[in-house]
Amino acid sequence: MRVVKSIKVLRKLLRKEKLSNHKIGFVPTMGSLHEGHLSLIRNCRRENEISILSIFINPKQFVKGDDFSSYPREEKKDIFLAKKENIDIIFFPTNKEMYSDGHSTVINVEKLSTVLCGKYRPGHFQGVTTVVGKLLNIIEPDTLYLGQKDAQQAIILKKMIDDLNWPVKVNICPTVREKNGLAMSSRNQYLSDNEKKEASILFRSLKEAKHTILSGQRDSKKIIQSIRNLITKNSSAKIQYIECVNADTLEKLTILKGKVMIALAVHLGRARLIDNIQIAVK
Amino acid sequence: MRVVKSIKVLRKLLRKEKLSNHKIGFVPTMGSLHEGHLSLIRNCRRENEISILSIFINPKQFVKGDDFSSYPREEKKDIFLAKKENIDIIFFPTNKEMYSDGHSTVINVEKLSTVLCGKYRPGHFQGVTTVVGKLLNIIEPDTLYLGQKDAQQAIILKKMIDDLNWPVKVNICPTVREKNGLAMSSRNQYLSDNEKKEASILFRSLKEAKHTILSGQRDSKKIIQSIRNLITKNSSAKIQYIECVNADTLEKLTILKGKVMIALAVHLGRARLIDNIQIAVK
Repeated sequence: MRVVKSIKVLRKLLRKEKLSNHKIGFVPTMGSLHEGHLSLIRNCRRENEISILSIFINPKQFVKGDDFSSYPREEKKDIFLAKKENIDIIFFPTNKEMYSDGHSTVINVEKLSTVLCGKYRPGHFQGVTTVVGKLLNIIEPDTLYLGQKDAQQAIILKKMIDDLNWPVKVNICPTVREKNGLAMSSRNQYLSDNEKKEASILFRSLKEAKHTILSGQRDSKKIIQSIRNLITKNSSAKIQYIECVNADTLEKLTILKGKVMIALAVHLGRARLIDNIQIAVK
Repeated sequence: MRVVKSIKVLRKLLRKEKLSNHKIGFVPTMGSLHEGHLSLIRNCRRENEISILSIFINPKQFVKGDDFSSYPREEKKDIFLAKKENIDIIFFPTNKEMYSDGHSTVINVEKLSTVLCGKYRPGHFQGVTTVVGKLLNIIEPDTLYLGQKDAQQAIILKKMIDDLNWPVKVNICPTVREKNGLAMSSRNQYLSDNEKKEASILFRSLKEAKHTILSGQRDSKKIIQSIRNLITKNSSAKIQYIECVNADTLEKLTILKGKVMIALAVHLGRARLIDNIQIAVK
């Protein structure tokens, strides 16, 4: 395994692989690796000759009020874990390597970036699409691995890749959860043991809602209200949003039909937590 | 020579070339080829194993008041000229092939896109950067050929490529001019014979300004005024702007120093004409 900090060195390493027609898989992360990331890495390893993990805490996707300065940084542990998974290359650039002075180009997926989390974190998804666009150009992978936990991020990146014709496939892997259902996230580190227990209500309420929908409920207002009640009764979480949307367009649904996604974001203790569930409704 | 309308077919053709490590050169155009384009093509042919010309009148770079509907379309003549230059592939997509319904991703180079022409054609350069980003992802060329006549466009595209790490070199080729000095442009077709004669004052006034600067003048106001006087006295052109800027940052200069670019845009008859000159000032 090699840890590479320089774009130039990385390109040189990859040039040979490309000319040998080796498949390159890529897992972009902000480090602080957990089982969710490791599952992406395992899928990537299985499907490619060369697997690359990037670790870059991208300042441009943190917006005002976000946790950029306190975001967990665990370089040594991350390298240890990635090595255990037989990653071929870790790309670990500095801010300076990624953003030259006077960097002024942005990629923006309009509409999709302004709803759900985008409404509360304006500029966040532009930061994500810009940095992933850069990483795609640096690495030129055959397949990009993303987690379903960040559903809106995955949908936006897929849209960017389609709209701008990036020659890369996207593999969206299922959310990995704690035993109690809490979706794995680097930000779970912010939670106390007790808050972690409380946080289990997020996925429980989504599963309950799915059950209610599959039993015939089609009124999104009622579904949202029942999730809100469950979360409020069973935790100290402050709800930012709970929405029923179309899973492709992210448009709000009044009547639940087609590819439905229920997505939510809450603040619990020091953490902002998100989760989602998808339901095919006839 | 092959004329390809489909992205999928084009990629299949290029895949083989890439695996053979053949250098691919790319000349993006909106068709209506003139000697300026042909000079780009000749540079491209000389430096690459495979040369690709794209012809696409990109609707997204025409803004309100622009000449999208009347822009010259000369498919047959263009194919004839490209064949004569031994282009390997012409990529000639439809609007639908380039922009799916619901296309919503944009690339924007901030600051540089809002000055000079960008001030008068808001959104124009975003249309250019977005379509060229797409074309770079579709073709994955080793070198991109652009004309110095569209200096701001070339500077913005170079900035986009640097900022987003596109793995492509940029070759900016000198402006090709009519005998009377008028910069070649597809829009020169809009001019009457008499207007073409009048239009020669644009480059003459720029050359005159360069001479004055090299003789010691450093005051941009005086330079701009002298160009304005020459154009106004010798033609019916309506001046949109005349500016002295730094040739890298496009920032306005009061005192002329360093890499100076004088850029101008005028309306003459039905045409909007642009031109520029660069001067290294000690």
